[in-house]
Formats: sequence, C-alpha cells, structure tokens
Amino acid sequence: MSTVKAYAAHSAGGTLEPFEYQFEKLKNEEVEIKVHYCGLCHSDLSMLNNEWGMTTYPFVPGHEVTGEITAVGTDVKNLKEGDLVGLGWISGACMHCNQCMNGDHHLCNTAESTIVNRHGGFADKVRCHWSAAIPLPKNIDMSKAGPLFCGGITVFNPILLADVKPTDKVGVIGIGGLGHMAIKFLHHWGCDVTAFSSNPAKKDEILEMGAHRVINSRDPKELESIAGSLNFILNTTNVTLDWNAYLGVLAPKGTFHNVGAVLEPMAIPAFSLIMGEKSVGGSPIGSPALSRTMIEFCVRHNIYPTTEEFPMSRINDALKHLEDGKARYRIVLKANS
Amino acid sequence: MSTVKAYAAHSAGGTLEPFEYQFEKLKNEEVEIKVHYCGLCHSDLSMLNNEWGMTTYPFVPGHEVTGEITAVGTDVKNLKEGDLVGLGWISGACMHCNQCMNGDHHLCNTAESTIVNRHGGFADKVRCHWSAAIPLPKNIDMSKAGPLFCGGITVFNPILLADVKPTDKVGVIGIGGLGHMAIKFLHHWGCDVTAFSSNPAKKDEILEMGAHRVINSRDPKELESIAGSLNFILNTTNVTLDWNAYLGVLAPKGTFHNVGAVLEPMAIPAFSLIMGEKSVGGSPIGSPALSRTMIEFCVRHNIYPTTEEFPMSRINDALKHLEDGKARYRIVLKANS
Repeated sequence: MSTVKAYAAHSAGGTLEPFEYQFEKLKNEEVEIKVHYCGLCHSDLSMLNNEWGMTTYPFVPGHEVTGEITAVGTDVKNLKEGDLVGLGWISGACMHCNQCMNGDHHLCNTAESTIVNRHGGFADKVRCHWSAAIPLPKNIDMSKAGPLFCGGITVFNPILLADVKPTDKVGVIGIGGLGHMAIKFLHHWGCDVTAFSSNPAKKDEILEMGAHRVINSRDPKELESIAGSLNFILNTTNVTLDWNAYLGVLAPKGTFHNVGAVLEPMAIPAFSLIMGEKSVGGSPIGSPALSRTMIEFCVRHNIYPTTEEFPMSRINDALKHLEDGKARYRIVLKANS
Repeated sequence: MSTVKAYAAHSAGGTLEPFEYQFEKLKNEEVEIKVHYCGLCHSDLSMLNNEWGMTTYPFVPGHEVTGEITAVGTDVKNLKEGDLVGLGWISGACMHCNQCMNGDHHLCNTAESTIVNRHGGFADKVRCHWSAAIPLPKNIDMSKAGPLFCGGITVFNPILLADVKPTDKVGVIGIGGLGHMAIKFLHHWGCDVTAFSSNPAKKDEILEMGAHRVINSRDPKELESIAGSLNFILNTTNVTLDWNAYLGVLAPKGTFHNVGAVLEPMAIPAFSLIMGEKSVGGSPIGSPALSRTMIEFCVRHNIYPTTEEFPMSRINDALKHLEDGKARYRIVLKANS
C-alpha cells in the first residue's frame, strides 16, 4: 500500500483538485513510475468533460508521462528501478490476442488506457504494464519528451503506415499539438512539407518547424493551386473538411490519413479514389515497438515538441490555456517535487 | 486507307448497326489488330447510353479484344505481324508524364480510351498504341481471354495495390462480370475467399469458382457474424452499401477497395478507420505491365472468365442479355470471319 498524490475532477467539467488514493500491491507484470513530467493532451480535456461517455470520477487525467521506474513486478524482465521511461495513452494490453502477438498492442480489443477506468499521470506516480513503459535513453530531455507518447506516436505511426518516403511531397492539416509534431517528423524524414493552417499568425513558427510552405486550409483557391501534388496528407483536425477538395490535392496513388476523429461521417466520392488509385485511412496512436523506434529517431535528430511548461500545481491554469486555444504547441506539467 | 467493318450506334441507347469507316495511315507507334473476339463489358452499355456524358456517335463499343497483329508502325519494336495480343480500356498514353514514366500509363492524364472519341473492338479490326497491346502466349484460349483486359485487370490490380497475401481472408462484393474474376484470382492467390452476393441462385456456381462461402450481402446479421475477420474486401458493385457495416467486417489493418463507381459519396465514419487502422481505396483498370503479369498468372493457373459466346452479328441480343442481368458471367463476341 502506498499513497498517490494526484489531481482529480469529481464531476464532468469540474476543476482539478488535489486527490489522494492508495495503490494496491504491485501486480507481477506492472511497473511503477515516479512522474517527472506529464503532457496535457486535448483528449484529457475531452475525457474530463465526459465527451466520449466513458469517464469515471474521480477522474485523474494525464497520459503523456516521462518518469523513472521506482518498482517492478516479479515478472518484469526488461526494466529495473532507476530506468527512465515514457508512458502514453495505452497502459497495458492482453499480450496474447492476434494483434498483441503481431506487435500491434495498441489495436488489442482489451487494451487498457492510462486514463480510462483508472488514474492517470497528473500525479506523483503512476503504474502500467511493463510493455507500455517505453525505455528512454539517459540523454533525452525529460521535460519535453512526454507528448511524444500520445500526440507524437499518433502522427508518427501514419508516416510508417502510409510508407511515406523522403522523396514524397506531404501535407499536414491543422498545426496544433499533433500537427506541429508531424511537421517536425516529416521535415526530418526528408519530405517536401506543406502545412495547412487556418491561423495566419502561426505561419512563421510553422516554417521554422520545417514546413516548406503554409497554405490557408480555408481557401479553396489555395487548395486548387496545388492540385494533384501531394503523396500523403495527414489530417489532425476533427472538423468536417471539404474531403473531395483534399482528395484533389493528392497526387495519383496518394493517401489521405485521418487521426482526427471527426464525428460526422466523411463524404468520400468513390470516383475520386478510383481515378487516381487514392485511399483514405486512419489510425489511433501506435504500437509500443514503434514508440521505441520513434524515440530513437527523435534522439538522432533532436526532435521534440514545442512546449510550454507549467508546474502541476497550476494544472487548472494550464487546462484553461489549452481550452482557450492558446497552447503553442503542447503544454507539459512538471510534477511537484 | 482500309475499310473497317464495325457495329455502331448512331444515338444514345440506339441499336447497333453494321457500320463501315476508313482507317487513316497507320501512325508510327500504332499497331493494327485483327479482332478475333471481344468481350462485352457493362461500361460498353453505359457508354452506349451516354450515361457518362462523353459518348460521341456513331459509337463503336468493344474494349476487351483478343486478336492478331496485322500491321505495325515504323517505331514499334516489340510486336510484329502475327503476334497475338489483348487490348483493354486504354488504347494509348502520352508515355512521358510522371505516371507513364512510373509504369502507371493507366493513370496518365491524357490516356486514350479504346471507345472514347474513337472506335472500339466490335469490328473486324482495331488499332492502338503499341504499349496498350498486351502480348499473349500461343497457348492462351483467345475465345475467353478478352475480358481479362478490362474486367480482369480491374480486379487484379487491387489485389496487388492492397498487397493481399495468400494468408489473408478476403471478400468480394457483387459476383458479376468483375466479381467472378476476382473470386478466381483470389482463390488462386491462396486466400480464404468470402463472396457477398444478393442472388442466392448463383451460390453453387460461386463456390465452384473457388469461394469458400457465400454471404447474403443484404443481410446485416450475416455481415455481423463475420465481424472483424477480413483483411481485404473488394467492392465491384456501384450501389450505395452500408459502408460502416463493411468496415466492421474488416479485420484490424484491413482495406476496403472500390472498383465500382457508386455516384453518391460514401459516408465513411473516421472513427471506424482510426480504431482499426483501416483504409478505403479505389482504382481503375491497371497498368500495361501488370496486365502482362496477370496474363502470366492466368496461364500458369488456367484462369479464365466464365463466358457465354455470341457471334458478333448477334450483338444486339448479347446487349439485351447483359441488360437483363442474365450474363453468366461475361459475354464474349466472336468476330465475323
């Protein structure tokens, strides 16, 4: 038994208050992580407001953790006390279904999420299955790496799924928490990168992140001016777009990939897919193995999200900052020491 | 100058009448083909009725030709008189755009179609660019091979595009001219093959073609019974389906591929793609290089469409047979000798 000092909301949309709860005995395959930092993701806000109807209260958000292993279960073979790790949206999987056996633990039907029916990383410690704790090298910047494990892997995975090549021309729609990381990844991938943004104030920052140009995502003429040119478009927004216009921006054999869960079904003309051998895909986060690969890639190229740091004690200010659309581009909370 | 004896309609929906026209001097990169057989494709009917608004009259249908080279232009290097060839929907391409240079001549923006603004294969001879004439081995069954060059390649291409593996579980929606060839290809691919048909009378024939089971495509309960099981679904119909139900039939990472150009945009819930890393694609016919590969595969495995033969003089009876939905499963016209 040990006491966890966390921040929890007690009802939908409530403020986060200091909240203590007890850990049970550590399970054989679990690890315990002392939280150093935890990113603030838009889905923390959605869960806080019970927008997806699956939140239980008291609700402790936080699923972009960096920290240090402080205890390991008896069956954990790959981690030990003192190891640095990251933890994202998934905190465990069954390990034996076909998806898990294929390395796609994130597609496991019974995968456990860090903040669904359990308490997350806005706390001094958090636990997870060993497979969900991604080992970090000693030289990583712990204060910035947290968002890689949810927002980062969410936009990294599609690049691999769509088999994007350094010779490709690519686009990213929506340059926020996820989109700005996609720009950085694709820049280091060697691609020609077009950013689609509706906020002209972000333009200089987006170019600095590695985009070659910024297109106004709300101007049909600007979309038309690059018709037939992009091999891959990653959509990080969750609003209804002019899908057919974006299919028109794709080059033959191009892929339009969604990570933003727009609720209204997308109206996709079959003919627009057929004539250019185009496709529309989607994906959630990514696998633990790919998260490890992503971290190697980030360390090699010094890729981090652009972050704003708040002490965890100012969690409600941070939430308001995000809610107001002011985050540039990802908020990270520093755990109370 | 030489006279072509063809069959043409002189207005939308008109009957086909004997029609003669003159060939100009053969172009340097063209070949002339003596038509032996020509398949009857549903798009001949659509073009005859000007459903796509691009038909010019007099209209000579026919774009699933097998025949013999009778003349070659001065710049043709790979074909000679007497060679057997097949000719499909595409009769030529620019040869120098990026698509052509990549081997995707069928995606060339200025590709020429055998029956658009030129006269097709319901005739004693037809011409095309050398690249569109697919060489045939001497031992091929000329009376059955024609439909491979439009309907066949249209369903063969997606199998390669979606990287279908012999270990995959696959489905085909709509078992007509295209779908029945897809069943045969996928059977010989080594896959577990599910046919989706709304016509119970076809069941035994479909099983004989190599499907492992036939599912009633109109019964939601039957779809539900195989939820999450198929890696690849090929849709050959052009009607609006319950897209989300079929996405539910896909296994994680599965692909739903359209070759049927349904006019109403498909309503695709982004969430259904995201949660299982699924995708929706489409394609037209296929490249000349892939057509050559397809023919090798067909000869190796003795794959032919299931055909009904009519003499070309009975072209209007054949059209009515197709229009009435009675074709089992592809009509081939034998040229007048």
